Amino acid sequence: MRAVLVIGIGMGAPDGLTFRAVEALGQADVFFLLDKSEGAGDLVTARQALIARFGKPSHRVVRAPSPKRAPAPLDTARKTYEGAVADWHDARAHLLAGLIATELAEDETGALLVWGDPMLYDSTLRVLERAQGQADFNIEVFPGVTALQMLCAAHAIPLNAIGEEVALTTGRNVAAATPQARAFAVLLDDGSGLAALMARGFDGHIWWGANLGTAGEVLLAGRLGEVGPAIPEARARVKAARGWVMDVWLARVAPGGPG
Amino acid sequence: MRAVLVIGIGMGAPDGLTFRAVEALGQADVFFLLDKSEGAGDLVTARQALIARFGKPSHRVVRAPSPKRAPAPLDTARKTYEGAVADWHDARAHLLAGLIATELAEDETGALLVWGDPMLYDSTLRVLERAQGQADFNIEVFPGVTALQMLCAAHAIPLNAIGEEVALTTGRNVAAATPQARAFAVLLDDGSGLAALMARGFDGHIWWGANLGTAGEVLLAGRLGEVGPAIPEARARVKAARGWVMDVWLARVAPGGPG
Repeated sequence: MRAVLVIGIGMGAPDGLTFRAVEALGQADVFFLLDKSEGAGDLVTARQALIARFGKPSHRVVRAPSPKRAPAPLDTARKTYEGAVADWHDARAHLLAGLIATELAEDETGALLVWGDPMLYDSTLRVLERAQGQADFNIEVFPGVTALQMLCAAHAIPLNAIGEEVALTTGRNVAAATPQARAFAVLLDDGSGLAALMARGFDGHIWWGANLGTAGEVLLAGRLGEVGPAIPEARARVKAARGWVMDVWLARVAPGGPG
Repeated sequence: MRAVLVIGIGMGAPDGLTFRAVEALGQADVFFLLDKSEGAGDLVTARQALIARFGKPSHRVVRAPSPKRAPAPLDTARKTYEGAVADWHDARAHLLAGLIATELAEDETGALLVWGDPMLYDSTLRVLERAQGQADFNIEVFPGVTALQMLCAAHAIPLNAIGEEVALTTGRNVAAATPQARAFAVLLDDGSGLAALMARGFDGHIWWGANLGTAGEVLLAGRLGEVGPAIPEARARVKAARGWVMDVWLARVAPGGPG
């Protein structure tokens, strides 16, 4: 039976990987790289460096352009957005199933590298599960350190207050409505989630970080009303300097605030 | 300036650590071990093995019994529970500040080992921040793989559905009320959170795991109404077999269900 390893590579720095993830990189016969068009230099380089350093000598790399997702503007109805994403997943599943069937011998092991951890706001596992309908293979997952963990480590803060519920959510969700939880961490924000929160006058604290664990790392923290305006500027500077930006943030309602 | 490294050791298996965490273990002059009375064999052994394997030859180990937390039964008002925890943190902060001041020379580095990641339902960073009021030292944090990541990896599932908000919460919170989020991950559950959810007839799916990534790992998944009754039994068996049990679970409202 074919095996496909889904390997969390954290922020891509070799010393941020677990030993298990490194071992998994060394087991793969074939690395499948589905390139998105964003193709930022740092990211491509980091992934190639990991494969070159930890892949076994006989490994092969199979590249394919990732199918494009239909654009889904923020004012599109949620169902349409989810539908567009589901269609995109179907297209990727079909592509991957084909690659696995044609590029991987029956006794071989393939691998997919995932930023952060495959469990957190990443589509790889969903896509692979769909691909299992079209090709026979087992899936094995190797956790990696998420940007959210890097954020908390960099600020030396816990995610949650004592016994507190914390919401993990997306910039898109925050743009639509402020989460009901008193603390929430936001991933996949293109800036619109933060802008919406500020426009609503959210009274609380924010811990923000971009390109965490990489050469371009930038951190900001403070009351949202004070530090908030600096974040889009910092984000733009990081993107201009590095060619890409990935940020994550944690917000918490001020003590005594609503909620 | 003294430094205290807070090192996430995941589930304690050496190959589950990141390279950075291993490097940090090798930098520490002093390891501070605050033992709780639960002192389960596997856990103590795992921590000792990491220090013996990755600590530098000249390292010292300073042990102290962790202050006991006042018991806070489930029917205690929340404020009282949080107050009891805060008192306990104060006592630990005082203890740690004293140990850091007396056991660590000005140019030395101390370390605390934390199960999982220090950001997730762990008190170490909160306690150290309080201790900084009584002793001068810097804090540096090294992420580790959390039980929640191990759970998702073991089941090969993503934490979130497409674009979905996920709540991270505690068994105590779930015992008090079912989270409003359609998906929620539960940590620190002594069984009462799950029991309450079942008693309320929660209609959804559960992915459960105990002692993840260790020799005693057990997994269960399915509709809560079907698999739920088996979980307390499995939990009891793990505890009887290994002397300790740590479990974590993810629940998701059934498609079309309330919420």
